[in-house]
Amino acid sequence: MSTRSSGEAAPDTVVRDLDVLLTMDPTVGEGPLGELRGAAVAFTQGVVSYVGPSAGAPDAPVVHSLRGRVAMPALVDCHTHAVWAGSRADEFQRRNRGESYSAILESGGGILSTVRATRAAPEDELVRLAAARLRRLAAYGVGTVEVKSGYGLTADDEHKLLRAARLAGEWADVRVVRTFLGAHTIPAEWRHDRAAYVRQVIEEQLPRCAPEADGIDVYIDRGAFTLDEGEQILTAGRALGLQLHVHAEQVEYTGAAALGARLGARSCDHLERIDDAGIEAMAAAGTVAVLLPAAMLYLRDVPPPVARLREAGVPLAVATDLNPGTSPLSDPWAAGTLACLTMGLSVEEVLLGLTVNAARALDRGAGRIRVGTRPGLAAFDPAPGEVASAASLVQAFSGHRLALRLAP
Amino acid sequence: MSTRSSGEAAPDTVVRDLDVLLTMDPTVGEGPLGELRGAAVAFTQGVVSYVGPSAGAPDAPVVHSLRGRVAMPALVDCHTHAVWAGSRADEFQRRNRGESYSAILESGGGILSTVRATRAAPEDELVRLAAARLRRLAAYGVGTVEVKSGYGLTADDEHKLLRAARLAGEWADVRVVRTFLGAHTIPAEWRHDRAAYVRQVIEEQLPRCAPEADGIDVYIDRGAFTLDEGEQILTAGRALGLQLHVHAEQVEYTGAAALGARLGARSCDHLERIDDAGIEAMAAAGTVAVLLPAAMLYLRDVPPPVARLREAGVPLAVATDLNPGTSPLSDPWAAGTLACLTMGLSVEEVLLGLTVNAARALDRGAGRIRVGTRPGLAAFDPAPGEVASAASLVQAFSGHRLALRLAP
Repeated sequence: MSTRSSGEAAPDTVVRDLDVLLTMDPTVGEGPLGELRGAAVAFTQGVVSYVGPSAGAPDAPVVHSLRGRVAMPALVDCHTHAVWAGSRADEFQRRNRGESYSAILESGGGILSTVRATRAAPEDELVRLAAARLRRLAAYGVGTVEVKSGYGLTADDEHKLLRAARLAGEWADVRVVRTFLGAHTIPAEWRHDRAAYVRQVIEEQLPRCAPEADGIDVYIDRGAFTLDEGEQILTAGRALGLQLHVHAEQVEYTGAAALGARLGARSCDHLERIDDAGIEAMAAAGTVAVLLPAAMLYLRDVPPPVARLREAGVPLAVATDLNPGTSPLSDPWAAGTLACLTMGLSVEEVLLGLTVNAARALDRGAGRIRVGTRPGLAAFDPAPGEVASAASLVQAFSGHRLALRLAP
Repeated sequence: MSTRSSGEAAPDTVVRDLDVLLTMDPTVGEGPLGELRGAAVAFTQGVVSYVGPSAGAPDAPVVHSLRGRVAMPALVDCHTHAVWAGSRADEFQRRNRGESYSAILESGGGILSTVRATRAAPEDELVRLAAARLRRLAAYGVGTVEVKSGYGLTADDEHKLLRAARLAGEWADVRVVRTFLGAHTIPAEWRHDRAAYVRQVIEEQLPRCAPEADGIDVYIDRGAFTLDEGEQILTAGRALGLQLHVHAEQVEYTGAAALGARLGARSCDHLERIDDAGIEAMAAAGTVAVLLPAAMLYLRDVPPPVARLREAGVPLAVATDLNPGTSPLSDPWAAGTLACLTMGLSVEEVLLGLTVNAARALDRGAGRIRVGTRPGLAAFDPAPGEVASAASLVQAFSGHRLALRLAP
């Protein structure tokens, strides 16, 4: 099962003596996780140049020997809103006391309070905050993070968020994939004329932001954008070469998932209320279902129909949804364990969902260890007395100890 | 609101410039959490000798200035099974695939597999494992941990676990309160004669273990011990001066909570199926309800009737239930956030439940910062951009960064 590329430059980094290596590629190792034991991975300028038995690994100037550890590709967090200013901890407390989110919104709280604070924050402050959040994700082994804008809601402010996301990725040594989300909510000053705001998104925000973005996302739901508005915005984004994502079927069924699939979206996210037609459309189009179990828990919501998504063959990804209101959590492992316990995912589905399927939602070469890819690597110390295994990584909920992270 | 003791030795340690100090004592600060702003705490050989405005704090050889941090008494984790050997990660995977716990038990898995591995482990190995687990708790700010035996189930093996718990506490600089749990389950070799096992617990295990224990616990439930067996064992423990705890009303309603209250138990734990009579008995006796939200989640169980417990005035504590099978989680903050999101506790109830009410379940002076107590201290960095507040600590779920911990 060892593979090596030929005719390339010598590797600069080798990670060897891995008790368990989960390549996430069944053509490289055993089972759905592509597991190898006693394995090594060599990298040449970040590109995998060897994966196979430790005994046959090439030498390199930098050698990490990680006996007793579980290693895998660096994790991919494919849905975050990591650039914001301000705090909504008071809102967490108010919701816990039984106040409704709509009452909080009406009193100036909720997403609109984050928009106010984020617009008011200078760009360097946003970079500092986002970089600190990305570093926390990196400390759990994350290498690639999708970051959405959506707290600016003007051309200048959305552009500021996307630039801040790029710089934060550089500061934190995390690969950032950026998504323009001017259609996150209708800002307070446009609530009287939503059509005018949709035009502003398409005609002003999008042309200015597209050069700083890899994708575009629309929040199609009750209280946000309609199916028709979403189609206009996504179509305009696609025309500028952006990958499509959709916040779909979370609060209310709208048909957003089927729309996303029809338009060729890389992912439809949330999906608590998706119907069979949406599932079939996603399966046919190869659209990734991004599951966000922390948001589901913080909102005391019901799980999406995971069994039907699985049966239909929709690829399942798991992400943190890191944001200040409904998922103030920067731990992909907590999201993964929650996906098991509250959504019924298997250990294997969680691990594929945090790596190769998440990368598929972003259309990048990350998330699997195979010669020629650039996945980075994350290795973990097992919990005290635990075996090094896929299951022990997923059962632990939180407190994972990173032994080594190589950025992708 | 400052208080200082007089006529005592000078303090050796001062923690000052605390943006927010949650003393957990409403006679010391504002509100239910006894909050002080711009505060300081001084310690004299571990005992609080000053708490009040930072400006008025005494000097000391060791001064920590913790601007921007939230501080509180070191956390108290009042229900753990932290001494074990072996792994049950495979069982997590099997249950996720839909296998029932009883099928796993029948195939030699579950608690009996932990008993086999723990009996086989030498004491120094148990000390090493338990100390590593206690250190993980300490890294989240925990200062006092209740540790139960219960994976030995013979006089020698239970004694070995309790001694290992003591040594692990010394290694990890955590105050350990030990509970004898020989009546955790009926071991395989006694399943044919449960009455004989109950006699062995009372006549052999208890006399040998009592000198190494602060308390006694019995698992009264379907598949474990009956109400009558529980009463015999608890009464025998009480006669030896041990504090009483009961695993009560978790799988099936048995009346265990009312029994515990009647016998003067410090705490009844789990309580998913407690009835009104049990709640009234606990309220009248001042018995603490120890809520274990992680176990509830891992077992896909329903929440206990928190609203009724609250209305009746039963003190609520929150604990990790750290154990290899149903709660393999060493993060009290994750348990706290789960208590909010799945059980409906308020932010204040979580913080009191992780400190002063948890200490009350153990009958110790920990869990509140007041002159003359010995609570230790834990201070945390807020998440990036977050305000220093009680709510921001509880909303975050995991990834809490400890700025300072003073052991109690």
